[in-house]
Amino acid sequence: MTFRASVLTLYPEMFPGPLGRSLSGRAMERGDVSLDAIQIRDFATDRHRSVDDTPAGGGAGMVLRADVLASAIDHACPPGDERPRLLMSPRGKPLTQARVRALAEGPGVLVVCGRFEGVDERVIEARSLEEVSIGDYVLSGGEPAAIVLLDAVVRLLPGVMGNARSGTFESFETGLLEHPHYTRPASFEGRGIPPVLTSGNHAAIEAWRNERATSLTRERRPDLLASHETAVKMPPGR
Amino acid sequence: MTFRASVLTLYPEMFPGPLGRSLSGRAMERGDVSLDAIQIRDFATDRHRSVDDTPAGGGAGMVLRADVLASAIDHACPPGDERPRLLMSPRGKPLTQARVRALAEGPGVLVVCGRFEGVDERVIEARSLEEVSIGDYVLSGGEPAAIVLLDAVVRLLPGVMGNARSGTFESFETGLLEHPHYTRPASFEGRGIPPVLTSGNHAAIEAWRNERATSLTRERRPDLLASHETAVKMPPGR
Repeated sequence: MTFRASVLTLYPEMFPGPLGRSLSGRAMERGDVSLDAIQIRDFATDRHRSVDDTPAGGGAGMVLRADVLASAIDHACPPGDERPRLLMSPRGKPLTQARVRALAEGPGVLVVCGRFEGVDERVIEARSLEEVSIGDYVLSGGEPAAIVLLDAVVRLLPGVMGNARSGTFESFETGLLEHPHYTRPASFEGRGIPPVLTSGNHAAIEAWRNERATSLTRERRPDLLASHETAVKMPPGR
Repeated sequence: MTFRASVLTLYPEMFPGPLGRSLSGRAMERGDVSLDAIQIRDFATDRHRSVDDTPAGGGAGMVLRADVLASAIDHACPPGDERPRLLMSPRGKPLTQARVRALAEGPGVLVVCGRFEGVDERVIEARSLEEVSIGDYVLSGGEPAAIVLLDAVVRLLPGVMGNARSGTFESFETGLLEHPHYTRPASFEGRGIPPVLTSGNHAAIEAWRNERATSLTRERRPDLLASHETAVKMPPGR
């Protein structure tokens, strides 16, 4: 089944961009993913093809019009299309790996990229857009955020990563940051590999990795550790 | 002064990607920003041009070699080059708008994009790489994250946004999420614009926006509100 991504944007030429390469590029070639970038401006109704106007109440910047964006959404995601409708926005709910996984298990996604000052609130309400933030910083528009979201989702689709990482420890999948990694050469500028990793003692290696992941998380992201400890106390099957 | 961005990657063809368009594309054309994407593989030393090897201690995936990456870093950012050296990594410190602003005030940035299972820890230590995370999700590699980081930084460089948003209310810049926006038409599918915004009473508009921004932040991001309340209690000049 093809995962269908439709992106509404004023810069369709930004897509697929980096998504056309590497893992996601190959997934698109195989037909596991389709990516359709739709120009919002094509749904403007005046002869200037305007998509934005000045903010009600005054202030700098321009606001994306509700009517134009609604027409674009209705075209890309007509009634009966059950895909979640996301609006990339710094005001949104922070994206998590759990949300990424849920999206990857669905039929696809509609992603609206804002530009200008913002998007008219009424279209967000009328079309039930789910505002999603990829982090606490401001971008020039939603396009780089859409690329990040789609990259995160596509790598989880069946067949995309192969079995390369199945069962491996990964940041956020366990609620902990990943432990440090080492590879050859055995000595790099006088720095060695921690001896336990070359001991062949798998239980000791596992314990070392867990300990390092936990202490790294405690040091850098105590907020994650709090929710991890809650999670591991929950009964299985949750 | 040109803001110099150097990106170390196994996919230099992903750059400038979306950064070549819109605001950042024009900033590059004007010479306000330079973006140099460097192929890490060019610094491999064996005849297979290997950049990665199996993880010490076993496990799935591959680890980027310390020696190869160190050579690439030393080439791109030789002694005396004072630019911060970032490694895009889910294990990193979460990117904030404050960090973005600090980077935009500096001479540029070196950005290392990881791939595979991770990067040999010894090169992170030996080259003082600052691990930066753009959010709590996992990407196929550091490239989409580097694009996000650079987009956020470039829009803050002098001249890039013009005065378009100077003095405007923006998510995270005040510690609050942005208030809702409205523009013409006055009625959209029976939904109007809140009357205060068309009242012409600027004090009332300002109060309404502040109230909406605060209640939206309380509802969606109480974590931000806590730090905002701390911030506004701090003496000015901090």
